[in-house]
Amino acid sequence: MEEPMTEMTPQECWDFLREQEFGRLAFHLADEVHITPINYAVDHETLLFRTAPGSKLLGIVMNEDVAFEIDQYTETHATSVILRGRARLLEEDEAHRSDNLRLRPWVDTEKYNVVEILPTQVSGRNFDLDRPWLHMVPRR
Amino acid sequence: MEEPMTEMTPQECWDFLREQEFGRLAFHLADEVHITPINYAVDHETLLFRTAPGSKLLGIVMNEDVAFEIDQYTETHATSVILRGRARLLEEDEAHRSDNLRLRPWVDTEKYNVVEILPTQVSGRNFDLDRPWLHMVPRR
Repeated sequence: MEEPMTEMTPQECWDFLREQEFGRLAFHLADEVHITPINYAVDHETLLFRTAPGSKLLGIVMNEDVAFEIDQYTETHATSVILRGRARLLEEDEAHRSDNLRLRPWVDTEKYNVVEILPTQVSGRNFDLDRPWLHMVPRR
Repeated sequence: MEEPMTEMTPQECWDFLREQEFGRLAFHLADEVHITPINYAVDHETLLFRTAPGSKLLGIVMNEDVAFEIDQYTETHATSVILRGRARLLEEDEAHRSDNLRLRPWVDTEKYNVVEILPTQVSGRNFDLDRPWLHMVPRR
């Protein structure tokens, strides 16, 4: 019988991160936690994303501690990769690092900044969802 | 020409929340921000989820401030609903509120706690993704 959960290797996590392009960024904004979808790309085991000035940028400039998640799921299986790390606004002379990556903003905007997430922890799990919970009721 | 982003009404946000069952919870754990996928259900404009003892439960007991996100996307469009709120571990005599909801844990576990998220802010956006970014390069 299959295990309901298996840990992914670091290599599997990075392969999955490279396959995807949308994830969710959790960040501090003063003493609150916020979450937002972002389009990202992997650049040498760091993540890059673009952002216009706003609360996301303000939050990470005030506190570099961030968490990031991507996932994929079907009726019976789910894969989720989580990373924690430090976000850093790239200087003008580094921002070109995003030029050749498959990055597109969710909204058209001419002004943007490039942010790098330097991971301190990366983990991934495959979940087996096909054992219904004992008390589960039929779908409504 | 279609706007690249439109705000969803509160009603549309709740309809979307009721249609989905997987989301991502961002929470504080001491001075860090963490993110994790969860299976949830809507119960009267609150969210409920089950969790075994662990860092997620510890985090929200230490700090009730949480953020939650669900989304859905295709090559050309994305929908994302975000809520911020307060998480609260339900008392034993309230935990039955989860009994008739379409909730299944991502991992089999007999011991669980029921957590309620009481939203303080709910917002949703539809994004139009079909305008490629000006500098976009062909997919690799």
